[in-house]
Amino acid sequence: MSVIRTFDLAGTAVFAVTGALVAGRKRMDVFGVAVVGLVTALGGGTLRDLILGSGPVFWSKDTAYVVVALVAAATTFFLAGMVRMPTRALVVADALGLAIFTIVGAQRALDGHFSPLIAVVMGTMTGVFGGIVRDLLCGEVPLILRKEVYATASLAGGLVFVLFLRLQMSMPVAAVIAAAVILVIRLAAIHWGLSLPTFRAPENEAQ
Amino acid sequence: MSVIRTFDLAGTAVFAVTGALVAGRKRMDVFGVAVVGLVTALGGGTLRDLILGSGPVFWSKDTAYVVVALVAAATTFFLAGMVRMPTRALVVADALGLAIFTIVGAQRALDGHFSPLIAVVMGTMTGVFGGIVRDLLCGEVPLILRKEVYATASLAGGLVFVLFLRLQMSMPVAAVIAAAVILVIRLAAIHWGLSLPTFRAPENEAQ
Amino acid sequence: MSVIRTFDLAGTAVFAVTGALVAGRKRMDVFGVAVVGLVTALGGGTLRDLILGSGPVFWSKDTAYVVVALVAAATTFFLAGMVRMPTRALVVADALGLAIFTIVGAQRALDGHFSPLIAVVMGTMTGVFGGIVRDLLCGEVPLILRKEVYATASLAGGLVFVLFLRLQMSMPVAAVIAAAVILVIRLAAIHWGLSLPTFRAPENEAQ
Repeated sequence: MSVIRTFDLAGTAVFAVTGALVAGRKRMDVFGVAVVGLVTALGGGTLRDLILGSGPVFWSKDTAYVVVALVAAATTFFLAGMVRMPTRALVVADALGLAIFTIVGAQRALDGHFSPLIAVVMGTMTGVFGGIVRDLLCGEVPLILRKEVYATASLAGGLVFVLFLRLQMSMPVAAVIAAAVILVIRLAAIHWGLSLPTFRAPENEAQ
Repeated sequence: MSVIRTFDLAGTAVFAVTGALVAGRKRMDVFGVAVVGLVTALGGGTLRDLILGSGPVFWSKDTAYVVVALVAAATTFFLAGMVRMPTRALVVADALGLAIFTIVGAQRALDGHFSPLIAVVMGTMTGVFGGIVRDLLCGEVPLILRKEVYATASLAGGLVFVLFLRLQMSMPVAAVIAAAVILVIRLAAIHWGLSLPTFRAPENEAQ
Repeated sequence: MSVIRTFDLAGTAVFAVTGALVAGRKRMDVFGVAVVGLVTALGGGTLRDLILGSGPVFWSKDTAYVVVALVAAATTFFLAGMVRMPTRALVVADALGLAIFTIVGAQRALDGHFSPLIAVVMGTMTGVFGGIVRDLLCGEVPLILRKEVYATASLAGGLVFVLFLRLQMSMPVAAVIAAAVILVIRLAAIHWGLSLPTFRAPENEAQ
């Protein structure tokens, strides 16, 4: 449990940093930056816990998550004007955060005896929902839904994780393989600028 | 129960299609279309179950809802570029979906021994919330709140449903009458372009 | 309990009025105004109850909240075209609503044996979340996150409230002092146009 929690807190910190960066670009004040950082970091797990009906959400009983997210967002706020953020490192860290949240989300659903399909949905939701709310709060159509192979990486990793568990693979091994799948897809997509096809509705379709 | 569930799944499919169409017009990729379809179809019932505190939300234990919504959204995605969608049929189907969700939402609240007022609120919320989130995710002010006699149709039908049940009418009869009220108001509003009045705040009101 | 509930209902009415005013400026119809009014008034407490996992949310079992919010929003809708709203009085009333919601939110978390940090977070969330959703529904980047010393006032008051309770001060005294802190900070911020600093990310930071 302690290993999972350590990873989970690391993912929380990274997501809080990305939230703080997006909010900062929108010229939000320090409070806005803190809120967007918190929501980005905790939003996915919050929605997951609400939907699974598992009582008080995870961070209301384990304060470390709130503290880590706040410290990460505040540090970002105060450093952002002073130093150049290492964008490349951040992208990799963000992909790692996505992998962690996906696996933790899927595992929580399986712990609650939900079906494999729901576990995959919960994994992806845990991974991407925070970023969706971040973009909504910042007045943008969520990037995740438009351009990048982001949620798709989460979805693929979640499928691999759940499938390998069903094949009796041990949890840590399945988790490492699933995380590798997410990282590889995500970083390949960034490196080669991959995106999924969109559809073109006939113009006269417009209401 | 089985009859209600069949109708409920039909409403789910229709709402997933409308979500997928709106997302597709925004050039979202296949994953974005699937997410918006899912959220449009399941959003209203999810918020209802959360607010009523009835444990895990309905679709987390009955996977058919997720499957139906995903299949409907994916089919829309792949067909949208190929065939012209039958807009007229869709509008009628959407009105039917609204009627079903309104009645199911109100009934769930009454099953939980909530007051008639809350049942009406829950009916309308179940009917319209998915569409509101769909529009938010697509970067638009929710259409439902601005222009159309949409939620008003849901509200009127919910009131009729709850009122007739209190007058000891049997549930199926009350449901059919309430559904007819919603369909007639909604289709009349579309046909004649009806809308409710807005208010004009004095200009010097602007903050 | 009855005193708290009276204040809480007063805060509900004021927030419903602010929601109705913002929705009205967006030319929403009477239904849209009612929805935005309801969400502004009940949104914060709803999210708080969901996160604390305290079963059905407060207004689903105590209908007075819904009735008060609807009446306040409807009255605003019908009066807005006829009379000039007393903006100054509204701003003060809104600050009072913020103070009430902050203290009630923090108290509810403490009642549920959550930590002081979570109580402060819940107080601020109860105070500001309704306004955030109001702005999202109206298609704007939430004002609270951008410009005003609004949430900061709530945060300061929540800290004072929780701190003074820990110092064994009686609840009513701590509540009055915390409310005064919120009112003074908020009204001073409006009067002198105070705002918190924002940060300037290096341009080459843009993704």
